[in-house]
Amino acid sequence: MSLIVQKYGGTSVGSVERIKAVAAKVVARHQAGDKIVVAVSAMSGETNRLIDLAKAIHEQPNLREMDVLVSTGEQVTIALLCMALEAEGVSARSYTGGQVRILTDNAHGKARIKEIDGHRIHADLNAGRVVVVAGFQGIDDDGNITTLGRGGSDTTAVALAAALKADECQIYTDVDGVYTTDPRVVAKARRLDKITFEEMLEMASQGSKILQIRSVEFAGKYNVPLRVMSSFQDGPGTLISLEDNDQMEEPIVSGIAFNRDEAKLTIRGIPDQPGVAYKVLGAISEANIEIDVIVQNVAKDDSATITFTVHRNDLPKASELLNQIAEDLGALEVSSDDRIVKVSIVGVGMRSHAGVAAKMFQALAAEGINIQLITTSEIKITVVIEERYLELAVRSLHSAFGLEE
Amino acid sequence: MSLIVQKYGGTSVGSVERIKAVAAKVVARHQAGDKIVVAVSAMSGETNRLIDLAKAIHEQPNLREMDVLVSTGEQVTIALLCMALEAEGVSARSYTGGQVRILTDNAHGKARIKEIDGHRIHADLNAGRVVVVAGFQGIDDDGNITTLGRGGSDTTAVALAAALKADECQIYTDVDGVYTTDPRVVAKARRLDKITFEEMLEMASQGSKILQIRSVEFAGKYNVPLRVMSSFQDGPGTLISLEDNDQMEEPIVSGIAFNRDEAKLTIRGIPDQPGVAYKVLGAISEANIEIDVIVQNVAKDDSATITFTVHRNDLPKASELLNQIAEDLGALEVSSDDRIVKVSIVGVGMRSHAGVAAKMFQALAAEGINIQLITTSEIKITVVIEERYLELAVRSLHSAFGLEE
Repeated sequence: MSLIVQKYGGTSVGSVERIKAVAAKVVARHQAGDKIVVAVSAMSGETNRLIDLAKAIHEQPNLREMDVLVSTGEQVTIALLCMALEAEGVSARSYTGGQVRILTDNAHGKARIKEIDGHRIHADLNAGRVVVVAGFQGIDDDGNITTLGRGGSDTTAVALAAALKADECQIYTDVDGVYTTDPRVVAKARRLDKITFEEMLEMASQGSKILQIRSVEFAGKYNVPLRVMSSFQDGPGTLISLEDNDQMEEPIVSGIAFNRDEAKLTIRGIPDQPGVAYKVLGAISEANIEIDVIVQNVAKDDSATITFTVHRNDLPKASELLNQIAEDLGALEVSSDDRIVKVSIVGVGMRSHAGVAAKMFQALAAEGINIQLITTSEIKITVVIEERYLELAVRSLHSAFGLEE
Repeated sequence: MSLIVQKYGGTSVGSVERIKAVAAKVVARHQAGDKIVVAVSAMSGETNRLIDLAKAIHEQPNLREMDVLVSTGEQVTIALLCMALEAEGVSARSYTGGQVRILTDNAHGKARIKEIDGHRIHADLNAGRVVVVAGFQGIDDDGNITTLGRGGSDTTAVALAAALKADECQIYTDVDGVYTTDPRVVAKARRLDKITFEEMLEMASQGSKILQIRSVEFAGKYNVPLRVMSSFQDGPGTLISLEDNDQMEEPIVSGIAFNRDEAKLTIRGIPDQPGVAYKVLGAISEANIEIDVIVQNVAKDDSATITFTVHRNDLPKASELLNQIAEDLGALEVSSDDRIVKVSIVGVGMRSHAGVAAKMFQALAAEGINIQLITTSEIKITVVIEERYLELAVRSLHSAFGLEE
């Protein structure tokens, strides 16, 4: 008998029929003898409907009241799912974040979980009930309703699994697992049976939108085995867990991630002296523009060049700021390019294998793809290339590292 | 500086525009220096939308989960109204029933309020905030969400007013006060400036649907002055309060109530002996049919006749039961009539005035209206007459007791 926490997102509970389908899935597992706790999101569209109501009343609605408003979305789902479970003959009980007592800080709209009281849930599970918890929400020390921000239902599920010492946290979504790369780009992409927390984090940070980064971090921190599964078809999904040291031979590369939403900015001919990187990048960051890849080189004339990437939407604003900075620093030139993409290979096996980068560069060179920027981490190598080569690059890397089915 | 509790129903908060209009009303009163607590219903249509979702999942949804579901309706309204108040520059804070701590029993769907903690509300009022509370809902000893049943928002408002020792509880509705009778029947009907709790109860029990009976009882019990006002037009409304003993001359009759939803049943020729009334009426009550007016007479031959009224919808079922009873008792005859109405005159002045009934009967006789049944209470006289005379009877009584403007 296992204790399983399952999480179903907004699409999975988007209609009465889908809620009934979720109930059927939960009941099957319950009848197999497992203890089941379910965390759910608002029905798809509901959160946006509520936000629209708020925006029609106030351009910048009070954050405390916004949480009171949007937290009703999940509250509707928990009640309906319990009714659907009872329709299948299974006793169930719903809890809002406040009722469980999912204690958070008071940062409305982006609260962080401090503590979860598992007392009532354990009592219900021991009484043979399925427990259904509203995702995405909690309560602060003063009893105010808080929300964890978009995607927070994943975090709720993982935090519940950690607090209840669950055997597994299953995240049901619209894909049947984590793939070696996007199957829309590489037809031969393969579902991974397992992947490590670190790899998943690197994949997620590179645009793989299956799981919220925060929930993966949380799962890694508390060592909660996470499984990504499909709401709409049966299958084992992908297990995300700690590195398995018993495994003799790990794959060097687990997956290929990529991101199209990037743009590149370069400032040339700035003084190569302490503080210059801060002068350039500080002003960009202060404008709340997130900077991703950063590369700095020094030219023969001892002047420096800094290149970095930002989200494409931020390019106009970042360009304007960078031109101002260039003027202040007496820089030679500012240039930008929004027809670039990032491609990364990710794998914990890199740690113990030399020559991975060389193999990557060779594969790209063989296709005549020029590499503009390179950055590396312990388990990831990222290159920035021209956008038109994206599919070709991903396919050739997928093949070079033997990721086909 | 007064402490006022205001209640706005579903129609008054039925759209973003109407919520803004409510906010404007609240702000005006707040800026005049009063402390304001607002109790609100769900936006009109919302509760039914939620109930439809539940019914699509389970024919008889679990009552605990039903309360979790429908209580979201008011939670949406409190957040939106607070945003609208902030848009007008007034600081506001919302509370669900559970957050106030409106403690109820655990009768889901029809819970009764046991206790209200006014602590947080007083603190907010003292800090200059408007407080907005979700009507219709509370929380039981175990932290489960409960609802008070339909119309429960009136009760929430009155209970809050009692707990907070408010100076007045204002119920905003779609009419501008309590009238001497239905203006659709008597064009000269007049808005009453004031009426007593008892009179209001008698009017309400006779079909005047402005206020829920339970909230009037509650207000009377705790002596909370209630004022019925219009959400859509300005005006003083009608104050419902204790009898004013200082007033030298009270009106004998305050209003004329009537009810079209009645049907009459008669059983004749039953033995005039102890227990026969119970044999006749007990079986009807046990079938959950509410019996209203009951009259029993004894004929010359010592057989008894019992006549009573039920809701018209219950007539077929009641007839069937009564025929069965007649057979068991060897009764002479059963007859029924669904073309009858009840008309009542209501007024605390009746207590100290003789001849009120005679005046009523005289007015009806002058119009040739036959009275079928009569019942009286301390402050009300009710007659059952043929349906076709309803308007004529109400108009003539309205005139006879000097209720015109």
